[in-house]
Amino acid sequence: MSLKVVTFGEIMLRLTPPGYERLVQARNLDMTYGGAEANVAVSLARFGMEASYVTKLPKNPLGDGALEELRRCGVDTNFIVRDGDRLGVYYMERGASLRGSEVLYDRAGSAIANATLSDFDWDEIFAGAGWFHFTGITPALGGELFNITLEACKSAKARDITVSCDVNFRTKLWDAKTAGESLGKLLEYVDICIVNEEHAGELFGIYAPGKEKDRDAFNRDMALYVSKALKDRFDLDKVAITYRRTISANENLWWATLYDGEDICISPKYHIEIIDRVGSGDAFAAGLIYGLANKKDLQFTVDFGAACCALKHTIEGDFNHVYFDEVKKLMEGKGGGRVSR
Amino acid sequence: MSLKVVTFGEIMLRLTPPGYERLVQARNLDMTYGGAEANVAVSLARFGMEASYVTKLPKNPLGDGALEELRRCGVDTNFIVRDGDRLGVYYMERGASLRGSEVLYDRAGSAIANATLSDFDWDEIFAGAGWFHFTGITPALGGELFNITLEACKSAKARDITVSCDVNFRTKLWDAKTAGESLGKLLEYVDICIVNEEHAGELFGIYAPGKEKDRDAFNRDMALYVSKALKDRFDLDKVAITYRRTISANENLWWATLYDGEDICISPKYHIEIIDRVGSGDAFAAGLIYGLANKKDLQFTVDFGAACCALKHTIEGDFNHVYFDEVKKLMEGKGGGRVSR
Amino acid sequence: MSLKVVTFGEIMLRLTPPGYERLVQARNLDMTYGGAEANVAVSLARFGMEASYVTKLPKNPLGDGALEELRRCGVDTNFIVRDGDRLGVYYMERGASLRGSEVLYDRAGSAIANATLSDFDWDEIFAGAGWFHFTGITPALGGELFNITLEACKSAKARDITVSCDVNFRTKLWDAKTAGESLGKLLEYVDICIVNEEHAGELFGIYAPGKEKDRDAFNRDMALYVSKALKDRFDLDKVAITYRRTISANENLWWATLYDGEDICISPKYHIEIIDRVGSGDAFAAGLIYGLANKKDLQFTVDFGAACCALKHTIEGDFNHVYFDEVKKLMEGKGGGRVSR
Amino acid sequence: MSLKVVTFGEIMLRLTPPGYERLVQARNLDMTYGGAEANVAVSLARFGMEASYVTKLPKNPLGDGALEELRRCGVDTNFIVRDGDRLGVYYMERGASLRGSEVLYDRAGSAIANATLSDFDWDEIFAGAGWFHFTGITPALGGELFNITLEACKSAKARDITVSCDVNFRTKLWDAKTAGESLGKLLEYVDICIVNEEHAGELFGIYAPGKEKDRDAFNRDMALYVSKALKDRFDLDKVAITYRRTISANENLWWATLYDGEDICISPKYHIEIIDRVGSGDAFAAGLIYGLANKKDLQFTVDFGAACCALKHTIEGDFNHVYFDEVKKLMEGKGGGRVSR
Amino acid sequence: MSLKVVTFGEIMLRLTPPGYERLVQARNLDMTYGGAEANVAVSLARFGMEASYVTKLPKNPLGDGALEELRRCGVDTNFIVRDGDRLGVYYMERGASLRGSEVLYDRAGSAIANATLSDFDWDEIFAGAGWFHFTGITPALGGELFNITLEACKSAKARDITVSCDVNFRTKLWDAKTAGESLGKLLEYVDICIVNEEHAGELFGIYAPGKEKDRDAFNRDMALYVSKALKDRFDLDKVAITYRRTISANENLWWATLYDGEDICISPKYHIEIIDRVGSGDAFAAGLIYGLANKKDLQFTVDFGAACCALKHTIEGDFNHVYFDEVKKLMEGKGGGRVSR
Amino acid sequence: MSLKVVTFGEIMLRLTPPGYERLVQARNLDMTYGGAEANVAVSLARFGMEASYVTKLPKNPLGDGALEELRRCGVDTNFIVRDGDRLGVYYMERGASLRGSEVLYDRAGSAIANATLSDFDWDEIFAGAGWFHFTGITPALGGELFNITLEACKSAKARDITVSCDVNFRTKLWDAKTAGESLGKLLEYVDICIVNEEHAGELFGIYAPGKEKDRDAFNRDMALYVSKALKDRFDLDKVAITYRRTISANENLWWATLYDGEDICISPKYHIEIIDRVGSGDAFAAGLIYGLANKKDLQFTVDFGAACCALKHTIEGDFNHVYFDEVKKLMEGKGGGRVSR
Repeated sequence: MSLKVVTFGEIMLRLTPPGYERLVQARNLDMTYGGAEANVAVSLARFGMEASYVTKLPKNPLGDGALEELRRCGVDTNFIVRDGDRLGVYYMERGASLRGSEVLYDRAGSAIANATLSDFDWDEIFAGAGWFHFTGITPALGGELFNITLEACKSAKARDITVSCDVNFRTKLWDAKTAGESLGKLLEYVDICIVNEEHAGELFGIYAPGKEKDRDAFNRDMALYVSKALKDRFDLDKVAITYRRTISANENLWWATLYDGEDICISPKYHIEIIDRVGSGDAFAAGLIYGLANKKDLQFTVDFGAACCALKHTIEGDFNHVYFDEVKKLMEGKGGGRVSR
Repeated sequence: MSLKVVTFGEIMLRLTPPGYERLVQARNLDMTYGGAEANVAVSLARFGMEASYVTKLPKNPLGDGALEELRRCGVDTNFIVRDGDRLGVYYMERGASLRGSEVLYDRAGSAIANATLSDFDWDEIFAGAGWFHFTGITPALGGELFNITLEACKSAKARDITVSCDVNFRTKLWDAKTAGESLGKLLEYVDICIVNEEHAGELFGIYAPGKEKDRDAFNRDMALYVSKALKDRFDLDKVAITYRRTISANENLWWATLYDGEDICISPKYHIEIIDRVGSGDAFAAGLIYGLANKKDLQFTVDFGAACCALKHTIEGDFNHVYFDEVKKLMEGKGGGRVSR
Repeated sequence: MSLKVVTFGEIMLRLTPPGYERLVQARNLDMTYGGAEANVAVSLARFGMEASYVTKLPKNPLGDGALEELRRCGVDTNFIVRDGDRLGVYYMERGASLRGSEVLYDRAGSAIANATLSDFDWDEIFAGAGWFHFTGITPALGGELFNITLEACKSAKARDITVSCDVNFRTKLWDAKTAGESLGKLLEYVDICIVNEEHAGELFGIYAPGKEKDRDAFNRDMALYVSKALKDRFDLDKVAITYRRTISANENLWWATLYDGEDICISPKYHIEIIDRVGSGDAFAAGLIYGLANKKDLQFTVDFGAACCALKHTIEGDFNHVYFDEVKKLMEGKGGGRVSR
Repeated sequence: MSLKVVTFGEIMLRLTPPGYERLVQARNLDMTYGGAEANVAVSLARFGMEASYVTKLPKNPLGDGALEELRRCGVDTNFIVRDGDRLGVYYMERGASLRGSEVLYDRAGSAIANATLSDFDWDEIFAGAGWFHFTGITPALGGELFNITLEACKSAKARDITVSCDVNFRTKLWDAKTAGESLGKLLEYVDICIVNEEHAGELFGIYAPGKEKDRDAFNRDMALYVSKALKDRFDLDKVAITYRRTISANENLWWATLYDGEDICISPKYHIEIIDRVGSGDAFAAGLIYGLANKKDLQFTVDFGAACCALKHTIEGDFNHVYFDEVKKLMEGKGGGRVSR
Repeated sequence: MSLKVVTFGEIMLRLTPPGYERLVQARNLDMTYGGAEANVAVSLARFGMEASYVTKLPKNPLGDGALEELRRCGVDTNFIVRDGDRLGVYYMERGASLRGSEVLYDRAGSAIANATLSDFDWDEIFAGAGWFHFTGITPALGGELFNITLEACKSAKARDITVSCDVNFRTKLWDAKTAGESLGKLLEYVDICIVNEEHAGELFGIYAPGKEKDRDAFNRDMALYVSKALKDRFDLDKVAITYRRTISANENLWWATLYDGEDICISPKYHIEIIDRVGSGDAFAAGLIYGLANKKDLQFTVDFGAACCALKHTIEGDFNHVYFDEVKKLMEGKGGGRVSR
Repeated sequence: MSLKVVTFGEIMLRLTPPGYERLVQARNLDMTYGGAEANVAVSLARFGMEASYVTKLPKNPLGDGALEELRRCGVDTNFIVRDGDRLGVYYMERGASLRGSEVLYDRAGSAIANATLSDFDWDEIFAGAGWFHFTGITPALGGELFNITLEACKSAKARDITVSCDVNFRTKLWDAKTAGESLGKLLEYVDICIVNEEHAGELFGIYAPGKEKDRDAFNRDMALYVSKALKDRFDLDKVAITYRRTISANENLWWATLYDGEDICISPKYHIEIIDRVGSGDAFAAGLIYGLANKKDLQFTVDFGAACCALKHTIEGDFNHVYFDEVKKLMEGKGGGRVSR
């Protein structure tokens, strides 16, 4: 039987002008839902795993809409608390070529941001679960969210549930110093940490040697250095690092590494033309969880995660509507796309 | 030269599912902007009058969008304060037949709701103005909004500017008792009061005799009774009352009366098939202001206001994109529509 | 074998804002093609008749688009001349309830308006044809169009081809006096004349007795009076008169009469909720031509025409995409609609 | 705890041209899913009941889409068999005024139409269930569907599960004689039968006295006569009859009666402007099941069902996205719509 | 006078989610029509040639739609048989970057797939024709389609009509062995054969030397080897081979060769960013037929075909809406695009 | 205080098929407004400068639409004359890859093309202005437009207003010889001239040495040669030259040079993936005006203009909806795009 994965965070209404219109030009908006941890839950459900998403949603049609979209994708929504004032919203202006995408957040005062410790009964939530995943966005939401996340981590740990954290540092929510300290406390309970190379430096002061001379430099030793430093600092089981190089707003390179204390494996470097990059990091996290939870080896796991991430860039919306066989096909080089090895 | 009219209140982003879809079904949303007092300003500008709209908007693309839509329609936006956190949003689910329209407000924490007395310099704003209009929504927004509105009223009065108020009671913002007391204080500074028959009763306890037996009853004497009571209570110059009878969610009857202490005039009773009824009361208010500011007689004024209101029901969005000649044509019975006299 | 019908006139690009938006609100436009005589040709082709449409279209993608839309509907386009500067355009703002529809023409300088006598070889065009139909719009286009139409009429007459004319008076193209005189000259060559009750009065001074007292009055004698007067004045074979009563911009009554010198037949009076009324008169003309060309009796013919017209009001665009069986079904009262008899 | 309801039948992809376009005009199609028994399941889930839908869907993105849409609405999809060749499709051309809606079925060869007895394990499906609902469409699909439905009925009966059947006769699937005989066999196992007045006559030869003179006639005695005859013929527990009068393609009257052997209750007669009438009968069936399963009295039950049905006419798509409180509000006359009592 | 070309095959309704949405995300579908041989006919008509398309279509609005779309493009539809049950449908999910496009066929039981020998009178169809074109899809449709195609070939041959075949092997319709044998029998009657390099190997076992070491290898000698082998095996007049290299799902290289037994000509190698690649092979075939039928030389012909194919990749839908002058302009290097020579 | 810039020319309705559809395929059109000089005015207003646009617009909803779109963007519309027959229209077919974009003009007979000298009172228009900008399109419109432009230039010169001209040669409006002579006369009054390298040759016979051998050649000396020749010929203050290299219809290189008689500065060479290239030259002109009017140095000015132009390629419609900070960010290399230096 499949392992049950619990994820916890904020899901928002996402409003996107059609095509490449700017918000100020727009006259209608495409309407989807998304949020880092919800995105992970959807990916896992798409791969056939049992995924439960925990959040707090207002009792109104937008709260219903978010819940129903998750349920549609096969995510368990039974532990979603229904109360509070509003659903957070974010507006996504799609960039192209020399103009980057812009995100406008309108998430203050959301039901989850105002949630309290008593909203969530982790004993009940974690019953039957084998994995808990959260990202650095959740404790950054303010109010009691750090404490709630901490309690969730402790409760998971007490039950021998594997805990993974995607660092996901967002400067619009908190500063690097606070983020570094807060996440540091949570990482004590974490087994698997996912972070991109910049955040490893900004939050934890861990920089690969040589990086200061060439910020685009990358090699196995540099990855190993950072991974080992993170593992040692926070007593982690495994460390995944992600790398992005921006050719233009719609053309990127992307790859990742995964370290287990002994070995470090490097994924293929994907050359990606972008349809929608929101949620691509979450797609990687989901792929990683899938691989580890299903006892795949290190190389398969990082390759699977990277292929998930690459495919997500071609899918509209936050959720990665791709299936195991499709990821596998890309890993085997049958997708026909442009992979720079 | 045309009289300059100042209006003050909240403009929101309005998001509407296409056709008759419910929010929970929707996958995209039509995007317009609207708010009671902004709607009045747009109507007046469409009639060729000088209209200035005062509010506070965040410095982001949605604040820009609201301001630009007003500017597009010819409204003076020079006294709009740009600061604060967010633009209020409302979602509008169009009803039909036996299913009424539903509005979901997401306006808490908007820039204008958090405005302070020091945000607005009424001396500067009222320079050159001849009329000030607000509705009961503005003081209901909470925070300092009642005090700001009061200050605006006093400042206008001190300059001999005509002040009009549309009572516009909204139960989602405050209760009838608070509304009645607060508006009562503001009405001391008001010359022209617009109110629908229900609110006259609910807020001020003024009911036409016979109404208790038949809530749909209407005749000249009943209108006169309520108008006179309001005029006397608040020492008003003129009182307009509006009447709506709902045949179905998309078929209504609508008419109004206008009383000047001597005479009461009754508009035609319009039989309306509804495309979009939001802003129809504001369209009436604008027509009334147009008539009075341009020294039209009582009957013309209430007829013009009612024709504005009737036409608004056929226009998509909050703003009433109709012109003087078109209103005139309907008043003269050349519109071809169904008027129940 | 089916009789070949030739129609001659202007087809335009029609641009329509979605739903009930006004032009000044619109951000995109629906794109169809239409024109009185082209509409007739399409209806006839839909009924399985051979219909050839004659006009002049520019050699550009819009000229191609107009021609291809006709060809798609089965109309013979082999006698369309390809040359000239531009395709005429009209913008159609859909009205509702108390707001009437508005049409904005941008047709000056179109290829057909600048056509010359030498553009059309009527001998070749009329080879094998049994019927020629035009409307009062064609000679009103200015330039040589009156002369071209006159030549077409003479050529048709010389070949014993039945000629029908729908008076279709448009005040935006010419005044009533000029129209009356010009059409009068053309009607000398016409066998079947279609006209609505107002135009019979405005252009030819023929008013039913009693009309001056009640402009909505209608009875068999009044219809007979006007029909007979027209028949006698222009030595016509048959006269059809159409009647519309406007309840609102989207609710009309419509019926017609047909007179052959002996008998006058009156169609059912249809109560119509309108989706798109443009082309409804052309739909009637097509139904009339169908009935007469196929030797149906007088009552069937006027009933068939009226049913065509009623159905057209429910079809989006100028062209009446309905089939014989569907018209028949409505005539037999099986359409389920609201018919006021 | 809520009673679990099982429904069984075919869900199809529904493709609808936008607005009032005909299929031959359309260039894009709105995409939803629907089918009589699935519609009932969605309604019940919307009312908070446990509803399980049983069918067979192909393993392709359209099969996924149908399943996911059901899951989104809260329907249990665990007993849906995934196999077979294709998903049935139907094209829905929306009519208006004098032009009726047209449906084009493309359902031959669908996964469910080719299902076999061994596809469904009714013991497992009915575990924990208290109600089984099917319609006359399911046994009409051909192949083994009659036998599968019969087996389901027998299995339900053996477990003391309440069985309801909506007769739903479709001439495009079978003739009245076959339908009458087949449904007669199934009705032996049915407790609650829903039928419209025409089908009671066509399939079972039961006509109210006086109906032959006036097909629109209706009174309590006529309803009682038919209900009693049906109850006696098939030894039913309760009989619901539905009535529709067509004013135009978008304006109908609708009401129902419910008989329990002692009493007959008549619902209000709703005057409905139609947005989308597909699934309105299913909405009534769901309301009826809700009332009876929750031990409401006869009058409440038929009134609740009729209000569900009336509201469905205002909802786009097959599924009735309305909630208990909204139906209640309409029943209490607070919906503001036009109810002819 | 232009040569008349007859093509024969299946045209389907094509339904495409907007943008890059997956089918499971889609809420509406773009609606076009297409099929290999119909695509060729449209291209030829766009180039001003007389093209007649032969198929069988159901008598319903979708059959009408397919026929009308062909007629709109100037294709002769007089030999289309109208009968049978349904129109085949295919769903086209547009890929991007690393995610390939996906096609879901729903074509079983289509009118043409169930056609019989007696449906087509080839004597009548071929009267006045000079060329017959079919593809390997037509005989693969099952039922009597192989025999009907064979009869058409024989009938064409007997009349000295040039016969061309595009091998177009589709694994979803039949296996390589059956396809190779069946097409082998038909190729006996074929003058011009078009095939891509893979199918030459898979169906006929003809591989260029060196291909096994490098599947992307290409040079003149390799092309000559395969062309000659095909020509000799099937006694062909000319052989065209097409080559595609996939950089990503939306970036391809494409070129072709044409051999006449003496000379082999190689087209430019086009570097193409793809809007819609469906029908690009058919565009090449049409260009080839145009060149040969109009007695152009070998190099012009293959260059013209390749330019047609390259342009098709930029056109939405199956049909290649480009004109002779546009193809010519690209051949002359004036299109401004990226050509790798 | 910001300098007021006056621009003068034609604004048209722009109608664009969605996505990459051709006009002949389109069924709806996106609706924006644009024109070379209006585009410049909008850019300047977006940068916070005072910009007044002068033209003549018909009194109809399309004239209103054009004016309102300008007003929305903050452009002063007080000197727009409202009269005349029609608004010019242009249809824009978006190209891709090997298929270039196509523009179809329908601008003959527009209000501005028929304007007369007496329509514009330049004394009033230029009151308070510091800069006048026009392009070579305006005098090419025919009628009195050359004389009106000449009068504007003289009037500006007489007031010591800086005059800039973007040569913008359009072969569809006039031939190179006429254009060269006419613009030559106007350039006598111009201070700043903007021209692309081809037009410098075609209109004024000024070719960089070596260009004949390699039309893609570029170096500092070549730019200097042409700039100096232009400066000397027309006694200009500054000369800007623009350069475009087409990789494909949606991938271009673009850069510019700016010469002040002493120094020549070269902008970065931008590698651009194109969303919409219309108006990109106008975006450069606006950037140039911004830099020079705000006393920026030569290098900043040409870099700012080039960054404006590069960003415009990513914005839908004619108008460049970008802000100063966004242009600055790209200049500082923080946009993340692909810049070839």
